Amino acid sequence: MDNAGHKAKVGPSVGETSDREEGLEFKPKFGADGLATCVTVDAARGDVLMLAHMNEAALRETLATGVVHYWSRSREALWRKGETSGQTQTLVELRVDCDQDAFLALVEVGGDGGACHTGRRSCFYRRVETDRGAARLAFVEPSATHR
Amino acid sequence: MDNAGHKAKVGPSVGETSDREEGLEFKPKFGADGLATCVTVDAARGDVLMLAHMNEAALRETLATGVVHYWSRSREALWRKGETSGQTQTLVELRVDCDQDAFLALVEVGGDGGACHTGRRSCFYRRVETDRGAARLAFVEPSATHR
Repeated sequence: MDNAGHKAKVGPSVGETSDREEGLEFKPKFGADGLATCVTVDAARGDVLMLAHMNEAALRETLATGVVHYWSRSREALWRKGETSGQTQTLVELRVDCDQDAFLALVEVGGDGGACHTGRRSCFYRRVETDRGAARLAFVEPSATHR
Repeated sequence: MDNAGHKAKVGPSVGETSDREEGLEFKPKFGADGLATCVTVDAARGDVLMLAHMNEAALRETLATGVVHYWSRSREALWRKGETSGQTQTLVELRVDCDQDAFLALVEVGGDGGACHTGRRSCFYRRVETDRGAARLAFVEPSATHR
């Protein structure tokens, strides 16, 4: 038996890492749960709208249809964004990060212009404020005004 | 974050959900692995630099020092961003999403102005291009020029 082929199982080789980071082959890497994180940005305004997850099927549907799909962890189902809320997202550009385990979706927002189920444009509508070690939240985007 | 999932499986009660989403109490929710995802944005330019993870200690250190800390999943260690690369990140504002399980860090980038270990400003330097079902990558940010 030839043992030489058995030693490379502790992580990617330098060549593999370099290919993944500097190559043009799309090799998305999903976690043990089959998911990769996607940060979604308004293509026109550039602000971060939300953060969600894609599995392989969601990624495939997003690229095939140009309509953003995620994987809903709570419902454990493929989720075409906006299918019930009307807050659809049309893909303008999909980017991938250095090690290809995270996506950045630049989107055009449909429906009422919101991305958050609370009715706001962005899910990130509160900031953390600290005062002598205690942390509280403050609204940066008021309720139910998305524009 | 997972917008589609509010039909009350085994999850929190309506009151708890409302508090978490509309309240001013900071109740960050970490996953089973103790981590929450953080998307990091250049506070001045508004572009997404990277996506990383924070555990409770990283969050605490970030808020206490104003210098962004993450949890390195590969090294399994608290990671003060820039401690070896010099690519420090000074916190300008930390936001939390609707269900408080994801963070948005607005930062001022130190060092050479980059956030990615490849030397680029952003980790999202390639976009996905599809051609008749086949997906390839293309660079949106060339190598080693971060500005």
